[in-house]
Amino acid sequence: MTVPFSKAMQGYGSDFIKDMFAHARNPDLISFAGGAPGPELYPLEEFRAASEKAFEEHGRTMMAYDGAEGVLQLRELIAERMTAMGVESSAADIRVVSGSQQGIDFIARAYLDHGDTVICEYPTYLGALNSFNIYRPNYVSVLMDQDGMRMDELEKVLIANPQAKLIYTVPEFQNPTGITLSGDRRQRMVELAEEHDVLIVEDSPYYEVRFEGEKHPPIKHFDKTGRVVYLGSFSKTLCPGVRLGWACADFEILDRFRILKEASDFQASTVTQYQVATYLRDNDMDAHMLNLCTVYKSRRDAALAAIAQFFPDNVEYTKPDGGYFIWLTIPGVNATELLLRAMNEMGVAYVPGEFFFAGADQSCNIRLSYSQMSEVKIHEGMSRLGMLLSSVS
Amino acid sequence: MTVPFSKAMQGYGSDFIKDMFAHARNPDLISFAGGAPGPELYPLEEFRAASEKAFEEHGRTMMAYDGAEGVLQLRELIAERMTAMGVESSAADIRVVSGSQQGIDFIARAYLDHGDTVICEYPTYLGALNSFNIYRPNYVSVLMDQDGMRMDELEKVLIANPQAKLIYTVPEFQNPTGITLSGDRRQRMVELAEEHDVLIVEDSPYYEVRFEGEKHPPIKHFDKTGRVVYLGSFSKTLCPGVRLGWACADFEILDRFRILKEASDFQASTVTQYQVATYLRDNDMDAHMLNLCTVYKSRRDAALAAIAQFFPDNVEYTKPDGGYFIWLTIPGVNATELLLRAMNEMGVAYVPGEFFFAGADQSCNIRLSYSQMSEVKIHEGMSRLGMLLSSVS
Repeated sequence: MTVPFSKAMQGYGSDFIKDMFAHARNPDLISFAGGAPGPELYPLEEFRAASEKAFEEHGRTMMAYDGAEGVLQLRELIAERMTAMGVESSAADIRVVSGSQQGIDFIARAYLDHGDTVICEYPTYLGALNSFNIYRPNYVSVLMDQDGMRMDELEKVLIANPQAKLIYTVPEFQNPTGITLSGDRRQRMVELAEEHDVLIVEDSPYYEVRFEGEKHPPIKHFDKTGRVVYLGSFSKTLCPGVRLGWACADFEILDRFRILKEASDFQASTVTQYQVATYLRDNDMDAHMLNLCTVYKSRRDAALAAIAQFFPDNVEYTKPDGGYFIWLTIPGVNATELLLRAMNEMGVAYVPGEFFFAGADQSCNIRLSYSQMSEVKIHEGMSRLGMLLSSVS
Repeated sequence: MTVPFSKAMQGYGSDFIKDMFAHARNPDLISFAGGAPGPELYPLEEFRAASEKAFEEHGRTMMAYDGAEGVLQLRELIAERMTAMGVESSAADIRVVSGSQQGIDFIARAYLDHGDTVICEYPTYLGALNSFNIYRPNYVSVLMDQDGMRMDELEKVLIANPQAKLIYTVPEFQNPTGITLSGDRRQRMVELAEEHDVLIVEDSPYYEVRFEGEKHPPIKHFDKTGRVVYLGSFSKTLCPGVRLGWACADFEILDRFRILKEASDFQASTVTQYQVATYLRDNDMDAHMLNLCTVYKSRRDAALAAIAQFFPDNVEYTKPDGGYFIWLTIPGVNATELLLRAMNEMGVAYVPGEFFFAGADQSCNIRLSYSQMSEVKIHEGMSRLGMLLSSVS
């Protein structure tokens, strides 16, 4: 068959995410690659109980169509959490999506034509690039420092790109760098977006995974003109297998989400929506998050201590207050080429930094995730990786 | 905010599906509108038991990421069913999607550029139009008779449109007409597709919902050149709330599905995939389908009997051997305008036929679904609808 793919598909796509999933299933590998929670941290018994309870209470409604907006009970519970985070909202301001990845995809479909300008951090989340790439946008990257995206740089970029449509940002414990956007920059970003009439996509799956430092309200908190789309997720707090996230935004945008949901897959699973709603209602999610954060903090500490102990002195690294990721800069090393040796000779996996750049790729970075491994394995894995890095730098 | 939507989104979308969902939740309405199974037919207890068993067997694996291809156990069970239907296949030939609607959407994204030609039946499934419309294709409709899409007409259309990319067809108990494509036309369609190098999208959610007449193998059965994509669904056999369907196709196409899945939502819910896999393993699905079909047959019989009894003589209607739908042709009546009176004065809902035409809309058709109502309600609803039709025709 020689039917050609659409223009968007030609030359699009890599095997990278598939390969990551495949490696993640190899139990012998010490993997700092996957950005998923440690499975031992899923509240299995509570979730099972919630599942049973949901079947008991809702019966056949669990198995039926519900609608593209999302199950009302779940949207109400999400709205409560958003309000507690500083974004006053009700169920009407929330749409359930099949993971926040679908939220990014819907934004791309709703707003991007070929060649439209997308502003993002340098580096940025590879899954977002994966969604945006289908629309072949023009990326403009903004430099970061330890307080996140630099607002002086953002202003320059907005002036130089008056047709820019949106700013994509991961403000909390950014994927891949672990860096958090400071409070005053959040307000400033909204001011700049208003001034230059662009949308802000605030992708914040790690918002609740903070284990130390000052909490900031979401960027959406400062939004008075309906131009911030907040994307949340249950993947990093409860578990990824339910495939549930949400968008909190203005009606005009949410109505596009509804239309795109109908055209894409009608709605998220009614079964998992009721399971999660019942879990949230019957359990203390804040206590669960506190437990989770205590474990992640120990893992981060183990990772940072081992890096300090085993890595060559010229390796720079970030020190996240939450989330999953540490970002390494290793002058003179090609991290992509090194990965094969890391896996084959050392039994250690990571994600090479170059996948996180929208153009002007850097090859000397590594994203390390400490979320999935025990402290003992983290120590062991970092010592092996340190040995390898010492041998090449 | 004045950030413009993408070209694809401008002027796209209607409230029709949302409104249908909303009406479907009104318990007082006698609804012949929704194309969903009667909720009383979901195997609730068996599904609950399967859910518990799946948690017991797979534990935290249920809650984790699995991969874009779909859970292996589920794909193996689907491949077994496909093989029994006459399409020899293994797990590698199957990709799990979030309902067959997502399969249609992925085909559209993988193959369609603005202006590409899509060949479909006249009328065709409105949900497919909804997915295709985003890519603003050029539709060419092919006339049907009681044996489905006419192959002489298809050949003319293929000759007149040498750049056509795909044929979209619902061969079994078509949505909206209830008509089934005959066996010899299936083979002929594949021959024509080979000759003119086009893809066939065989959307067959009702394949197993046959209650009488001769069973035909899927079109995919005749495919020797990897140009038929078979889309299946659990929505009409088990329940729609799990949001699970599948594609059975050649690797080149399935690899696009994997890439699009990663960019869209990573994967279908691991939870519901294991629930359905366990349900399929532990239950006699064929016996369940037999029960289901017995009920649907009675409902169809009740619907056809009431139509014969109550409807004006000039109303033409189809007599399906399976599936959910009867298609009315009512000369001189505008079914879209009449819907408001049907709902407000008669408490009866249906779907106006005009939503099912890709251009050259007809307004004198009605799609009636008998899947959701008891025989008593069907009788009552048809008698009211007959009264209304008699008053206007």
